[in-house]
Amino acid sequence: MATKIGIIGMGRIGNVHYKNLKQMSGITIEYICDIKADDTWEEKYPEAGKVVTDYHEVLESSDVEAVLICVPTNLHPSFIIDAANAGKAIFCEKPVGFNNEDILKAYKVVKDTGVVFQVGFNRRFDDSFDRIVDYRDAGNLGQPQVLKITSRDPEPPSLDYVKVSGGIFMDMTIHDFDMARFISGQEVESLHVFGNVLIEPEIKQYNDIDTAIITLKFKNGMLGVIDNSRKAVYGYDQRIELFGSEGMAHADNVLDSQTTYASKNGVVGDKPMWFFLQRYMKAYAKETKSFFEAVHGEHDVECTFEDGIRAIRLAEAAKESLKTGNEVKVKDIF
Amino acid sequence: MATKIGIIGMGRIGNVHYKNLKQMSGITIEYICDIKADDTWEEKYPEAGKVVTDYHEVLESSDVEAVLICVPTNLHPSFIIDAANAGKAIFCEKPVGFNNEDILKAYKVVKDTGVVFQVGFNRRFDDSFDRIVDYRDAGNLGQPQVLKITSRDPEPPSLDYVKVSGGIFMDMTIHDFDMARFISGQEVESLHVFGNVLIEPEIKQYNDIDTAIITLKFKNGMLGVIDNSRKAVYGYDQRIELFGSEGMAHADNVLDSQTTYASKNGVVGDKPMWFFLQRYMKAYAKETKSFFEAVHGEHDVECTFEDGIRAIRLAEAAKESLKTGNEVKVKDIF
Amino acid sequence: MATKIGIIGMGRIGNVHYKNLKQMSGITIEYICDIKADDTWEEKYPEAGKVVTDYHEVLESSDVEAVLICVPTNLHPSFIIDAANAGKAIFCEKPVGFNNEDILKAYKVVKDTGVVFQVGFNRRFDDSFDRIVDYRDAGNLGQPQVLKITSRDPEPPSLDYVKVSGGIFMDMTIHDFDMARFISGQEVESLHVFGNVLIEPEIKQYNDIDTAIITLKFKNGMLGVIDNSRKAVYGYDQRIELFGSEGMAHADNVLDSQTTYASKNGVVGDKPMWFFLQRYMKAYAKETKSFFEAVHGEHDVECTFEDGIRAIRLAEAAKESLKTGNEVKVKDIF
Amino acid sequence: MATKIGIIGMGRIGNVHYKNLKQMSGITIEYICDIKADDTWEEKYPEAGKVVTDYHEVLESSDVEAVLICVPTNLHPSFIIDAANAGKAIFCEKPVGFNNEDILKAYKVVKDTGVVFQVGFNRRFDDSFDRIVDYRDAGNLGQPQVLKITSRDPEPPSLDYVKVSGGIFMDMTIHDFDMARFISGQEVESLHVFGNVLIEPEIKQYNDIDTAIITLKFKNGMLGVIDNSRKAVYGYDQRIELFGSEGMAHADNVLDSQTTYASKNGVVGDKPMWFFLQRYMKAYAKETKSFFEAVHGEHDVECTFEDGIRAIRLAEAAKESLKTGNEVKVKDIF
Repeated sequence: MATKIGIIGMGRIGNVHYKNLKQMSGITIEYICDIKADDTWEEKYPEAGKVVTDYHEVLESSDVEAVLICVPTNLHPSFIIDAANAGKAIFCEKPVGFNNEDILKAYKVVKDTGVVFQVGFNRRFDDSFDRIVDYRDAGNLGQPQVLKITSRDPEPPSLDYVKVSGGIFMDMTIHDFDMARFISGQEVESLHVFGNVLIEPEIKQYNDIDTAIITLKFKNGMLGVIDNSRKAVYGYDQRIELFGSEGMAHADNVLDSQTTYASKNGVVGDKPMWFFLQRYMKAYAKETKSFFEAVHGEHDVECTFEDGIRAIRLAEAAKESLKTGNEVKVKDIF
Repeated sequence: MATKIGIIGMGRIGNVHYKNLKQMSGITIEYICDIKADDTWEEKYPEAGKVVTDYHEVLESSDVEAVLICVPTNLHPSFIIDAANAGKAIFCEKPVGFNNEDILKAYKVVKDTGVVFQVGFNRRFDDSFDRIVDYRDAGNLGQPQVLKITSRDPEPPSLDYVKVSGGIFMDMTIHDFDMARFISGQEVESLHVFGNVLIEPEIKQYNDIDTAIITLKFKNGMLGVIDNSRKAVYGYDQRIELFGSEGMAHADNVLDSQTTYASKNGVVGDKPMWFFLQRYMKAYAKETKSFFEAVHGEHDVECTFEDGIRAIRLAEAAKESLKTGNEVKVKDIF
Repeated sequence: MATKIGIIGMGRIGNVHYKNLKQMSGITIEYICDIKADDTWEEKYPEAGKVVTDYHEVLESSDVEAVLICVPTNLHPSFIIDAANAGKAIFCEKPVGFNNEDILKAYKVVKDTGVVFQVGFNRRFDDSFDRIVDYRDAGNLGQPQVLKITSRDPEPPSLDYVKVSGGIFMDMTIHDFDMARFISGQEVESLHVFGNVLIEPEIKQYNDIDTAIITLKFKNGMLGVIDNSRKAVYGYDQRIELFGSEGMAHADNVLDSQTTYASKNGVVGDKPMWFFLQRYMKAYAKETKSFFEAVHGEHDVECTFEDGIRAIRLAEAAKESLKTGNEVKVKDIF
Repeated sequence: MATKIGIIGMGRIGNVHYKNLKQMSGITIEYICDIKADDTWEEKYPEAGKVVTDYHEVLESSDVEAVLICVPTNLHPSFIIDAANAGKAIFCEKPVGFNNEDILKAYKVVKDTGVVFQVGFNRRFDDSFDRIVDYRDAGNLGQPQVLKITSRDPEPPSLDYVKVSGGIFMDMTIHDFDMARFISGQEVESLHVFGNVLIEPEIKQYNDIDTAIITLKFKNGMLGVIDNSRKAVYGYDQRIELFGSEGMAHADNVLDSQTTYASKNGVVGDKPMWFFLQRYMKAYAKETKSFFEAVHGEHDVECTFEDGIRAIRLAEAAKESLKTGNEVKVKDIF
């Protein structure tokens, strides 16, 4: 029998999950929920059983076994608490929240109720990045020593979005912070940031930056570096490299096609896939598939609440380092 | 309203189409049909409206608008005739038949009835190959002069399959023959074959070969070459190159991931995707999508009955060249 | 003590050898010889001991141990005979001659006198091609099955040159014929040619072509294909691939640099090195170094008179196949 | 007429220059000088006019126009002063010295005497790195924003060498510091270091490290990062990337060959060239060629004394940052 689910919040990422889930065997989208939903949505979302504007309706349905929380970040903690108290399995988009007190409250409720909880770090499900972990786990890299992550967006977000984004570290680098932990299998001890506004001067008024290099010192002694830019004209630049005593695994960009064109001006290859919806399309499908497998007890959750909080701790440390110019120790979950 | 369809023949390729179509918006799989179907199939194919063993049932349903013919090749012509006479739009797997007289009969009925007809040359829908055509059509290659196709399977088919396959040219090279026409946009005037049995000696008893190099002379004077092997240990090797007066477009293999591993033994990249179900997964979805768009009158069929017959004419010429050792002129459709 | 040598014929390739040899330890360029030499040459070639116009002077010098014959091809046989009779070790440019009777006469004198003789197939000394042979000899490829050579010049020769070149097979493909034997380690049984004039219509008046695909059937059953073009706008295209039962070795083009440029138009890499003087610069130095090692008895000649004749036999067969349209058996040395 | 030169110090790098210079047109190696030279050296260095043990002999020769100083770093300043006072053009290996007072004294004498002076930052003459600068200067990158340098040796130096090396920043990173300035065309304002001993524990007793990540803040606001390791098992890893508002130029490693091997284990490419003598062989020849062109007044020196001192200032700042854990401002020349 199919698992009945609800998607709460039908923004860009809610729609990604809708598209993937309507194609997934064994899943029935019983509800979609959005405060902006109106009469036209039933036609727009034909695979959705019911369209509602109040998420309590979803949580009150005894048919619904699991919910995907895709509302704005500041709402995550309260929605998590309500869903956990309603006994629903929860998939929550990243970051799990902005306010630390709220996050820890939500965390406590999730632990107390024992519901299945997964945070949406989709890049953990990318084939090329997973391959690095395969090499690491097989011992092919020996002792890991240096981790390098390049993460550049093809275009900066709108200033309206920047305003509510939580800043580059919480909004964009948070994925890289999670990758730093996931790819290395290690925790970060401290970090140091150099950042600047080189792309969009207007961003300064929001105390934000658009270009950053973050260096990491891991607890086991290994070192790491993340470089971020809000605008790479050639497309979404997502490369990771793990260097160790016995070798290096390097994940290069995924291109639009494998076709090159040689002319008197050189040999041109295709660009990296444009943005996250292209590059990580398959990873998004895999992360929700994995979530439902965890809901069905087939394996542990691959991306836990703790992972969600630790990434936030890294973002907080980065913010402080940018402000003070100093190396900053990364805090623990509590 | 959804288009209702039937899939006739649920072998390997019928299942590929089933999987794609059940995820396609606007399509309802009203019937699946296979002579081997039994009571367990309704559970096995939950998205199929009805499971039947006699394809006449499918054709007689007035709900069904289109059928996919995925039965063994020798049955294609008669199934095409019946489906056309029933007024169904037809998607037929390649090759359209073995016996020339039967093929032409089926062709006539399709023309007379005027039903939409598409042949299953899935590679026309591969992103990397399409990119070559884009470069050609944009004039970036100037006057095309040389076409090169490398097409190697990862493992030879079973001898049982070889027996009924129609031979390497009809079974395997037929895709490359279609690609030769599609990528160049030109017709082949004559061809010459060198072939041998280098992989599986047993294949000889069926008058077949497993390794071939076919050279092509196009009507417009350009030249081409196809090299085939039934066994590339490193995986499915599918590369195409179109060389012209102003440049060359080259489609390389699609790999399992973009991750490399550098060690003291060299720098290892991932292998080409294993076989056609991996490499062309997306192309299979695109070809049926394109078929239904043609059914709905959104554009012309991208892969016509004529294309199906011309590829067969090339396969027939190749067979003759292998036998006689001579250059052989390629026959017209009739 | 340095080996004293003479270079006979100071055209393009004579100058290449001059440049390499003046830098080679243990070599003294005692003579350069060219019928066009005049008083200005002593300044132009400061490292040359003497500049002469008559090659007999070089051969008569008892100091000279070895000569490099770089005169036009039609003169090769008589110069070889004179040099062999003078007891000089001989390095002769490819092809060893045009007229078969003359070639065999020269061959006999070389055998009778027992002088060291090397023919100038420089590509045997290219690092990337040698690497294919390494893989083959190490057994990494298993049983070789298919050989593929792409060989395209960046620009066609002048019509003046075409006139005396001996035709594309004797002038250009001869290198590829030698590579076919060298890379495979096998002899060719027969071949078939498709050729055309697609680049320079004027070439037709000399009964020559500018585009060709030559397929090869080897004595051990393996197959091969060479594709030639006189004009690749993106530069000198020199790729070789040897495919076998256990793997494939593929030598790609050598580029001007390893630097790519990613912009909104794609990712551009550098072009292949422009032409043979760039791509094979290092190979030219290695071939003469190897020759002098053979002169000093350090190893056998790596590229023999027999190799020179066999390549010519392949060129002759290609000419015939182009004329008749038939598969042609390759003749033995005698 | 040939320029007469002397090479002072015949260690590893002195021998590299000897080998290049003996092949260079217009150069006569009048002297080689080394305190360890003995009677056997005349045979060992046949192209050297005279072999001496006291460098004053070289400086006193009125024939000698230029000297290459290849002695241990601590001797550089006094040798520079003597050579400048003798009116010789000077090519001095990097770094120009260890002791700041001595360096500035030498700098003053060079300026006062006006002799031509070049420091041996060979990487400025690498084709792939130069290509990045070409793209930058052509405006293809727009406004440079992020510079990334990966620089890893294939094996750590001996502990004996580590002892006198001046530490990783002065010995190894100094090249990368120069590259940071050369590739960006900008000066560094401040830097921050994370470093550790992850490869050779014994190195700790010399207060040195073997793994480092250095982040750079440039005066114009752009950011940079250098990552160093003393041991990459796959060979010398030398990559540079300059990212800007309009594109990115990326110089990848130069490989031993362009040949790949595809087997059932993946597709293996050749490794990066083993170490600096392989990778930068051509760059070493180009840097001395450029020096002699500057000596002959054909162009300005491409790598000045100031460049040598600025790289040292960066190394000094890195040392301090490693010690204090803080961001450190880079000092000016004086």
